[in-house]
Amino acid sequence: MMVLITYDVNTESEGGKKRLRRVAKQCVNYGQRVQNSVFECVMDAAKCREVKNKLEKIIDKEKDSLRFYYLGNNYKSKVEHIGTKESFDVEGTLII
Amino acid sequence: MMVLITYDVNTESEGGKKRLRRVAKQCVNYGQRVQNSVFECVMDAAKCREVKNKLEKIIDKEKDSLRFYYLGNNYKSKVEHIGTKESFDVEGTLII
Repeated sequence: MMVLITYDVNTESEGGKKRLRRVAKQCVNYGQRVQNSVFECVMDAAKCREVKNKLEKIIDKEKDSLRFYYLGNNYKSKVEHIGTKESFDVEGTLII
Repeated sequence: MMVLITYDVNTESEGGKKRLRRVAKQCVNYGQRVQNSVFECVMDAAKCREVKNKLEKIIDKEKDSLRFYYLGNNYKSKVEHIGTKESFDVEGTLII
């Protein structure tokens, strides 16, 4: 199934910038970065639990958030892209 | 139907920061901001075309991107949130 992972990490502090890098680094192990803080991951339920657990441990739940969208198997018709498709640096440039 | 709109706007220039604000301001007219650059919009096909046209005119397609995810009507079971749920300022603080 395709799982879309989106995140907001509050980067006002140095700790926040570090969390952001760590979240991004984990996500690239599970899927394709399609925007700066949006990843599309084709994975089974076990892998999904795994990445969710890892990300939950990295973020500060008072300041950051994660969202998971379960798009099922027929996800290709459900996605539309407009604009640039540049590849992303996992270190996360400060583009929103 | 629920349409998820995600965007990346390159804010390296003043023009980019202005585009980012304009994109966010349009999106709030159509749905709920759930993360800094993620909106959930419950709307029909006509409204969806409308917002898409507006956003396409605002962004710089060489630098920015928009993604639309069509989550259908049974979207509530397809979404999971972890972490903070603070409300967002439409002016868009520089949080990724």
